[in-house]
Amino acid sequence: MTSLNTLQEHLKQITPPNTALQEQAAEREYYLAKPRGSLGRLETLACQLASIQNNSRLRHKHKLMVVCAGDHGVTEEGVSPYAKEVTYQQILNFQKGFGAITVLSRTADVKVQLLDVGVDYDFPALPHLIAKKIAKGTKNLSKGPAMTREEAIQSILTGLEVVLAEPYVDLVAAGEMGIGNTTPSSCISIVYTGLSPEESTGRGSGLSGELVRHKVEIIKRALEINKPDPSDPIDVLAKVGGLEIGAMCGVYLGGAIRKAGVIIDGFIGAAAALLAAKLCPNIKSYLIAGHKSKEKAHSAVLDFLGLKPLLDLDMWLGEGSGAAIAMFIAECACTHFNEMRTMDEAAIKDII
Amino acid sequence: MTSLNTLQEHLKQITPPNTALQEQAAEREYYLAKPRGSLGRLETLACQLASIQNNSRLRHKHKLMVVCAGDHGVTEEGVSPYAKEVTYQQILNFQKGFGAITVLSRTADVKVQLLDVGVDYDFPALPHLIAKKIAKGTKNLSKGPAMTREEAIQSILTGLEVVLAEPYVDLVAAGEMGIGNTTPSSCISIVYTGLSPEESTGRGSGLSGELVRHKVEIIKRALEINKPDPSDPIDVLAKVGGLEIGAMCGVYLGGAIRKAGVIIDGFIGAAAALLAAKLCPNIKSYLIAGHKSKEKAHSAVLDFLGLKPLLDLDMWLGEGSGAAIAMFIAECACTHFNEMRTMDEAAIKDII
Repeated sequence: MTSLNTLQEHLKQITPPNTALQEQAAEREYYLAKPRGSLGRLETLACQLASIQNNSRLRHKHKLMVVCAGDHGVTEEGVSPYAKEVTYQQILNFQKGFGAITVLSRTADVKVQLLDVGVDYDFPALPHLIAKKIAKGTKNLSKGPAMTREEAIQSILTGLEVVLAEPYVDLVAAGEMGIGNTTPSSCISIVYTGLSPEESTGRGSGLSGELVRHKVEIIKRALEINKPDPSDPIDVLAKVGGLEIGAMCGVYLGGAIRKAGVIIDGFIGAAAALLAAKLCPNIKSYLIAGHKSKEKAHSAVLDFLGLKPLLDLDMWLGEGSGAAIAMFIAECACTHFNEMRTMDEAAIKDII
Repeated sequence: MTSLNTLQEHLKQITPPNTALQEQAAEREYYLAKPRGSLGRLETLACQLASIQNNSRLRHKHKLMVVCAGDHGVTEEGVSPYAKEVTYQQILNFQKGFGAITVLSRTADVKVQLLDVGVDYDFPALPHLIAKKIAKGTKNLSKGPAMTREEAIQSILTGLEVVLAEPYVDLVAAGEMGIGNTTPSSCISIVYTGLSPEESTGRGSGLSGELVRHKVEIIKRALEINKPDPSDPIDVLAKVGGLEIGAMCGVYLGGAIRKAGVIIDGFIGAAAALLAAKLCPNIKSYLIAGHKSKEKAHSAVLDFLGLKPLLDLDMWLGEGSGAAIAMFIAECACTHFNEMRTMDEAAIKDII
């Protein structure tokens, strides 16, 4: 069986969520001991999770954050204020538990798996790092395809299989570390949403205005040279994507197979979600937008996906940091739904 | 010593926060291993908490939610869709751990204290209920003062002393249960912010349009009859406030004395914060707006206090529910600040 066949077999397992359970959950919300609708997005999220998890008791104990890491050949064009060595240095920092994503995941009681699919560095064996390197970074996408078609498929399968290998998964998110990865994310966003290169290109991890204009030119060149085919998301990922972006896409698909709520982090995560939605439209109902990033085009991509972010904390770090915090909101959606009593159970007389 | 003297002695202990520590915290944020400013409001909140707690290591273990409960004579005017009996029924429900505020506080690892300062019901002795009833509800404020001046002072002192009695307090919030309590909250908001009765009056726990107009008339009548003196917050609380609103104000003051971050919940909590700020302007720097409620005038009151809410989850339940969730955001502010490493410590080379 080819790797593409393997992927297609996986995709067949992603079924539409159970809308009958969504309606049943909405009925329960109606009778819980509170004014109707007063818990706002916790209520709608609980109903979505009931349909995703195919269960009227919501599961939230096993929260998983897969931080996908890869390097980008396009960094040689100066599209990031950080050197690409920061990718592996941060993975080592995360591995020790000192990075933002590891601290915030610990605070939110989320298990972190670090996944190397494409870092340009020879890591020693490390306890929290899953070593599945496909290549030592992508090629410079402004000069030709970022990777081969086979590498693109493998990146998706790798993310997917990490989620399938977990004993339990109730809520899942994908984080990332990959200096330069807002550039491929902008390319993917342009292919799918109709945003212009100018609209889609932001400051990434802190570019100044002039360097943003340079980044726009690099992105235009990448799209002109590669001519990715929007009808073929593997082609888009291979030509103008990134290895860790493919793995994030795979994490989402794996989450849906496991009937877990899938929480999207920032701009890179949203770009990966565009690919996942194109590969498998059924996944859209599994997606939850964790937060609104300050990265320029993030909101537009979420709008395109029909998603409204849970949080807006002026964050733009990436790594999965917004999704880690949003895991707690999803947990509140689950606990209020599971643990509150109805008006009748609580013997509260609802008068008007 | 009179009760007013006792209160004044307490207020003297609320000192301005330590701005030198705020600056020192901002410097640490600058060097943590992330793009500068990329954790957005977590960073500004960490700096605020450093100044409040007067410490460069942020404390977040001991999170306290004091749910203040009282009834309102004005419910006889039909200002709420719920009967006032729901106040005591919900307290019994909270006491068992099944209400929204108890579930969400448990999820956020927040200790809940239920405080009866004015419920019109004889509770039995209950393990999680602090019995400090001042009166069996307020009088109908549309016909005269809601309470005496002495009762108003006692309500503040009661909330304050609950916080002082806790062995440890790092972050504190006040929740509430009191059918009818958006009506006094609107009155207080009008007195302090210049909002009109129409602007200040919302749907509370679910009033329809016509009943909202009736509520506006009741509020106008309350202000005309009582003529509360804005320069005297005790007068405002006594004439158009509520016993649990006074207690919430006291919880905030107690929090500031304990050098804890003080998290405001919804509209009723914001009204109590207006009183606290008038009693003791120093408290303003201790206040954190937990969330943006859908109750109409909440945002305007927060604007007046110079506060920007952390969350916007379309909630309007009250009870402390938004503040309970915001406790987790405050915890993330603390943990990222305490546990992340700096660029140097993590051996990350910052290039540009």
